[in-house]
Amino acid sequence: MSAESRLQELGLTLPEGPTPVASYVNCVRSGNLLFLSGGLPARDGQLITGKVPDTISPEEANEAARLSILNRLAVIRQEVGSLDKVRRIVNLQGFVNSAPDFFDHPKVINGASDLLLQIFGEAGKHSRLALGAAALPLNAAVEISLIVEVE
Amino acid sequence: MSAESRLQELGLTLPEGPTPVASYVNCVRSGNLLFLSGGLPARDGQLITGKVPDTISPEEANEAARLSILNRLAVIRQEVGSLDKVRRIVNLQGFVNSAPDFFDHPKVINGASDLLLQIFGEAGKHSRLALGAAALPLNAAVEISLIVEVE
Amino acid sequence: MSAESRLQELGLTLPEGPTPVASYVNCVRSGNLLFLSGGLPARDGQLITGKVPDTISPEEANEAARLSILNRLAVIRQEVGSLDKVRRIVNLQGFVNSAPDFFDHPKVINGASDLLLQIFGEAGKHSRLALGAAALPLNAAVEISLIVEVE
Repeated sequence: MSAESRLQELGLTLPEGPTPVASYVNCVRSGNLLFLSGGLPARDGQLITGKVPDTISPEEANEAARLSILNRLAVIRQEVGSLDKVRRIVNLQGFVNSAPDFFDHPKVINGASDLLLQIFGEAGKHSRLALGAAALPLNAAVEISLIVEVE
Repeated sequence: MSAESRLQELGLTLPEGPTPVASYVNCVRSGNLLFLSGGLPARDGQLITGKVPDTISPEEANEAARLSILNRLAVIRQEVGSLDKVRRIVNLQGFVNSAPDFFDHPKVINGASDLLLQIFGEAGKHSRLALGAAALPLNAAVEISLIVEVE
Repeated sequence: MSAESRLQELGLTLPEGPTPVASYVNCVRSGNLLFLSGGLPARDGQLITGKVPDTISPEEANEAARLSILNRLAVIRQEVGSLDKVRRIVNLQGFVNSAPDFFDHPKVINGASDLLLQIFGEAGKHSRLALGAAALPLNAAVEISLIVEVE
């Protein structure tokens, strides 16, 4: 099943691709690699904020990581026209807005990784870095960047 | 206008490329991509330090981010001879030495992004990750790494 | 001398490649670049934990960084069959589990960089990002990711 069909089957709709602000853009292509900017999680256009586990639970942050993938996918579709042009999710960097004594970053970032696997199957299996950041832009709960190989 | 001309027009002079220390180097080329090491900000050879906003203001850290681009450009010129060989700034990772409750990392890192845009125009528009680090080497205010596509 | 011979001469044995967990994998190849997941340090299968310098010394964390390279090399060998297929260590990202006032991340990550140089010689000279993370998965002392060019 194609990634676009799978997205539909999962009942997922991609948000508008985020508006590039200032002097950077959502995505740069070099050869057949897309380098995506760090994306923040939103639900219905509302940013999901909080430091894990002090002001947002690991479970909510896992859901935030999942949602942040939706706007990363919107960027990919914007760039190459269709998710079906993705050959491989190459790399994911997942930063958690983390208290200094929180150690379950992998479980949080699994929200992002699991969704990629659901949508892309084998092509969604990526290498990954997951860790805790001292602070994230606008107090976002997570920030996720991707490198993606396309046709 | 070429990047080298633009640099001159802006009245900017690049510092000496930093001396590689220990077992790593300033830059590795793979294909037509340059992977640059993380660079620290300096003014007249003096490191700019501080945690934002406790011991350095966001405005000063923005200027530090701008200055750290100058020594990254020195590395690029050292590697390929001229900034005019840059085809695209592909990706920028900007880490801010950040208090746990500081959330304006994008504004700080804009110092770096804006200068790239000034110098390279369209080719300077990059994908970007900006966030807060718990601590940076030598207490530097920011640390910036780049991936750059060259001819 | 080949990298595999050098490894033997140094008396080093690689651990088992870590078992991929959840929805990500240890390594993804795109073209002739390997993108490795972030690796954690272990000694005899036991994770090395602690925040530098509060609960682990910089010297012990340096040794942890060195050990974390061994399992990254195990991943490379698993992927391409032999370390002798490595053309260049392109990039290393080293995150130290760092107190907010610890600034010697480069000395810690040198444990990783020095070992790469010992094993690969010129091909081991990499670009590098070293900095302090607020927290790392499972309270690991360091986390290291690599981009590697192979034949």
